[in-house]
Amino acid sequence: MTRSLGATDFTAPIDDRWFDDYVEGAQYEYGLLTVSEEEILRYAEQFDPQPIHIDPGFAVSGPFGGLIGSGWHSAGLAMRLLADHYLSKVASLASPGVDELRWKVPLRPGDQLRLRATVLESRVSRSKPDRGIVVTQVELLNQDDGAPISFRAMNFLAVRPAQNP
Amino acid sequence: MTRSLGATDFTAPIDDRWFDDYVEGAQYEYGLLTVSEEEILRYAEQFDPQPIHIDPGFAVSGPFGGLIGSGWHSAGLAMRLLADHYLSKVASLASPGVDELRWKVPLRPGDQLRLRATVLESRVSRSKPDRGIVVTQVELLNQDDGAPISFRAMNFLAVRPAQNP
Repeated sequence: MTRSLGATDFTAPIDDRWFDDYVEGAQYEYGLLTVSEEEILRYAEQFDPQPIHIDPGFAVSGPFGGLIGSGWHSAGLAMRLLADHYLSKVASLASPGVDELRWKVPLRPGDQLRLRATVLESRVSRSKPDRGIVVTQVELLNQDDGAPISFRAMNFLAVRPAQNP
Repeated sequence: MTRSLGATDFTAPIDDRWFDDYVEGAQYEYGLLTVSEEEILRYAEQFDPQPIHIDPGFAVSGPFGGLIGSGWHSAGLAMRLLADHYLSKVASLASPGVDELRWKVPLRPGDQLRLRATVLESRVSRSKPDRGIVVTQVELLNQDDGAPISFRAMNFLAVRPAQNP
């Protein structure tokens, strides 16, 4: 079970969280998620069957000195922490995409991972004022503070509905 | 079993393919990969448990009129076609990341998917002349030519070793 690791968290719970609750400059951390060799192999056999990801014998003599996880597996792990803790369960509309996705250090079996999410930008849509766009710097960090993946995510979120008087 | 769909494919087989074989302007297509509702649910339950991805009942009344796959599932499917057909099994060194990742249309159960890979740029490293960087525009296309995912991938690849005389 993962949880908030930071000094602060959203005051609004994830099932009553709206565009308005994503404030520029806010930073949150969630974790810890661990990843096993078996999970790395299972992901890679399905989606990324390169020798460095599926063949521990080959990988030990390779450039990383052992098996490493697919970069897209790291993306999935980051998404899991975003879905469980950061991204509203009621206001999330869609994501047009992400920018500057980087794999700075390998994902390795036994890694203990946490997510750091920083709200870079938050603005109401001019054409559709019932929603806004939130830009988030997402970093998945390991036990040595290296980042197996980082990216800048864009998300459309509905604004908080008007309360009845 | 997926295969080359285009008029042309690499002349070098994937297990003897090197940096030199990625020529600017070349474009290849591979497929078809199908995705089922069960696969969409299985991915999302593990990595992206948002209602629109894991709850068909909720999703039918949602903005997309039905269940849609996680954007990161689309990334995994694109990677599978890249690994099976495009990315050298012997010369691939690592990828520093991707840029401009976009989810233009939803991934839906029953989609028949193909990969289009276009070599945008190919240049030998100045600091390490035994390798080069290849920049590829990657598009995963569905049966209507919509792109559930596209991105610009960077890959380091070893140059072809010198032949003995």
